[in-house]
Amino acid sequence: MKPLGPIPAGFSAIDGELAIGGHKASALVAEAGDTPLFVYSRAMIHARMAQLRAAMPERIKIHYAMKANPFGDLLEHMAELVDGLDIASGGEFAQAREAGFLPREISFAGPGKRDEELHLAIRAGVTINLESANEARRALEAAQALGVAPRLAIRVNPDFELRGSGMKMGGGAKPFGVDQAQVATLAKDIIAAGAEWRGLHIYTGSQALDADAIIEVQGNVLDLAAQLSVEVGSALPHLNMGGGFGIPYFDKDRPLDIVSIGSALDERFGNLPDVLQATDFAIELGRYLVGEAGVYLTRIVDRKVSHGATYLVTDGGLHHQLAASGNFGTVVRRNYPVAIATRFDAPAEEEVNITGCLCTPLDRLADQPLLPRADVGDIVAIFCAGAYGASASPSAFLGQGPALEMLV
Amino acid sequence: MKPLGPIPAGFSAIDGELAIGGHKASALVAEAGDTPLFVYSRAMIHARMAQLRAAMPERIKIHYAMKANPFGDLLEHMAELVDGLDIASGGEFAQAREAGFLPREISFAGPGKRDEELHLAIRAGVTINLESANEARRALEAAQALGVAPRLAIRVNPDFELRGSGMKMGGGAKPFGVDQAQVATLAKDIIAAGAEWRGLHIYTGSQALDADAIIEVQGNVLDLAAQLSVEVGSALPHLNMGGGFGIPYFDKDRPLDIVSIGSALDERFGNLPDVLQATDFAIELGRYLVGEAGVYLTRIVDRKVSHGATYLVTDGGLHHQLAASGNFGTVVRRNYPVAIATRFDAPAEEEVNITGCLCTPLDRLADQPLLPRADVGDIVAIFCAGAYGASASPSAFLGQGPALEMLV
Repeated sequence: MKPLGPIPAGFSAIDGELAIGGHKASALVAEAGDTPLFVYSRAMIHARMAQLRAAMPERIKIHYAMKANPFGDLLEHMAELVDGLDIASGGEFAQAREAGFLPREISFAGPGKRDEELHLAIRAGVTINLESANEARRALEAAQALGVAPRLAIRVNPDFELRGSGMKMGGGAKPFGVDQAQVATLAKDIIAAGAEWRGLHIYTGSQALDADAIIEVQGNVLDLAAQLSVEVGSALPHLNMGGGFGIPYFDKDRPLDIVSIGSALDERFGNLPDVLQATDFAIELGRYLVGEAGVYLTRIVDRKVSHGATYLVTDGGLHHQLAASGNFGTVVRRNYPVAIATRFDAPAEEEVNITGCLCTPLDRLADQPLLPRADVGDIVAIFCAGAYGASASPSAFLGQGPALEMLV
Repeated sequence: MKPLGPIPAGFSAIDGELAIGGHKASALVAEAGDTPLFVYSRAMIHARMAQLRAAMPERIKIHYAMKANPFGDLLEHMAELVDGLDIASGGEFAQAREAGFLPREISFAGPGKRDEELHLAIRAGVTINLESANEARRALEAAQALGVAPRLAIRVNPDFELRGSGMKMGGGAKPFGVDQAQVATLAKDIIAAGAEWRGLHIYTGSQALDADAIIEVQGNVLDLAAQLSVEVGSALPHLNMGGGFGIPYFDKDRPLDIVSIGSALDERFGNLPDVLQATDFAIELGRYLVGEAGVYLTRIVDRKVSHGATYLVTDGGLHHQLAASGNFGTVVRRNYPVAIATRFDAPAEEEVNITGCLCTPLDRLADQPLLPRADVGDIVAIFCAGAYGASASPSAFLGQGPALEMLV
């Protein structure tokens, strides 16, 4: 028997079935027309935003990192809830515009921006988080050709990192951002070239569950931002402090204590140095806002026993849930939170293996959990599917195609 | 410095540039219109098939496992070269028909076939490789509803496996196929139910480079097929012996010795038991046929130095080359064969890191290889990109979209 990750708070049963946003899983599948299906809960995203607003200082803006989930209906919903949007490509810019975000609310980070993406974004008035001196030169050239003052910020590669984060994005040599020692010179150069100086972007890591680590790194980010602004010789207009807020995926993971983070930040905001007195502060969250609000529903198409082990084979798989299968950024595979949606409150009574429909041993959705007895036709729920699911998986693999998606 | 995998034989330089199918990389990019671009060489696939035909006994049929690469033009080319096609979904069936394969040439394996996929395939006359007793029942029901005799084979989960294979598909409890001890009973049942008995499918693993291991497992497959046929009590019409033929991806990998495999198989074919005398034999290859014939071309959009390390940031990445980034089925990341296509015969002189354009530290294409000096605008080639590249990567990630593909 192997443990499952913890099912996020906020899910309940109706008539014995998992309910999402007040609708039974089977009813949602019927409405969508088929499985596999991603369901995202508007109410859960709303509740998460409310908790966050309550915990964080009023002064801090909350940006959505749309790479976590760019589904159109969800993005439209986010446009009503957040203060800004972080994009990572021209493709995301187009999706963001369609969802109703204004260019002035958008900032664009990413180490490999193409010239045409820079042109498009600068023309629209998007803030560019510059990743290198070379990119700064290309952005200024694009702006000159367009006859506009580009809105430019610098993404900093800090000398420190976010302890315990799932993905470290700072500390030492990195393809992201400008090494902190080079930032002030570059900032002065782009200000002198006539750019609208939009400040700094300091992203140190993602998926951390330790509040103390986030408090420490946010302190370091504020110190570095102040130091760099003194070097630049001007007050800092804007500081994107990055994200890093994680969600529990695996057994023994505990939810992040955002109240501690908020109160530490509040204290820091009470003691800001001069160069940061008038700064607009933002944090940039993706997974934390939408990850737990999503559920992937997939139907059991076969139940079989091989050498004494029971397999529930579903019509879904790693082509929609690459991370849950253990094949994306993880060394040791562990189980996400998983349940039999159609027998949500039944007692766990048998050890099974849940696999996808792909012809590869990589396609595992749950290894040896103890679950209620399930049969062909039952629906399996994979939780924590709201971020880095549908868009971060190889949906064309083995001719399967994308899953359905709906916001309820 | 870290080593690169070996560049497959057959590539040369024209005017100092990598040439594919007699065309310079830059000319191919110009023709396609952009990077990133997958280029597949018709001539190299043709040559690979010719080597294989020469090495293998005439009696053995060669099937293409289209999951390796379903690109339309390539699939049409394969239709002219191979004796059969293995599909894994209804989506692949549609692509196969469009490419000109006839249903009678097609067999369909996969542990999670839906009822509608079974209906579609059985109506067309495709051979179904049954993965379980439950699936057999569903296939027979579908055939009855359609009023046809279904063409049914059984996929066997053998008690042995392919030693040293990248992916083990046999030995012990597995979601694939029917445990060998249950095969004879199921075969007799489906024959009694009026199905056209199409024999056995025994797939034991993939990506093996050790000829002795493949020779051993093919011997075991023939022995098991004979034993099961005796148990069934009838001569075996068809045996899909699986694949497993690997290609070198990494430093120190050596090409598979197919001549040894062919001569061992020839010897076995000279001593077949009665139940296999009239059997049609096939091997099922994907990666081995097309993997080395593909190159992924991506342009350098930034060159930067961080803490003394040089980064070449490209417009491609793991959204097209998940396996090359080290994030698909590998525990330790190693470098694929990589070159600067536009400086193909220049001396290697600097250690660099080649990354994709995605905003994640997972997006690495080559760690610390020694390569010719390259700048923004140069084209990077990732070799061994003909299989499990475009279709096995999350192309929608970060709004990037799919790469271009062309067959030359």
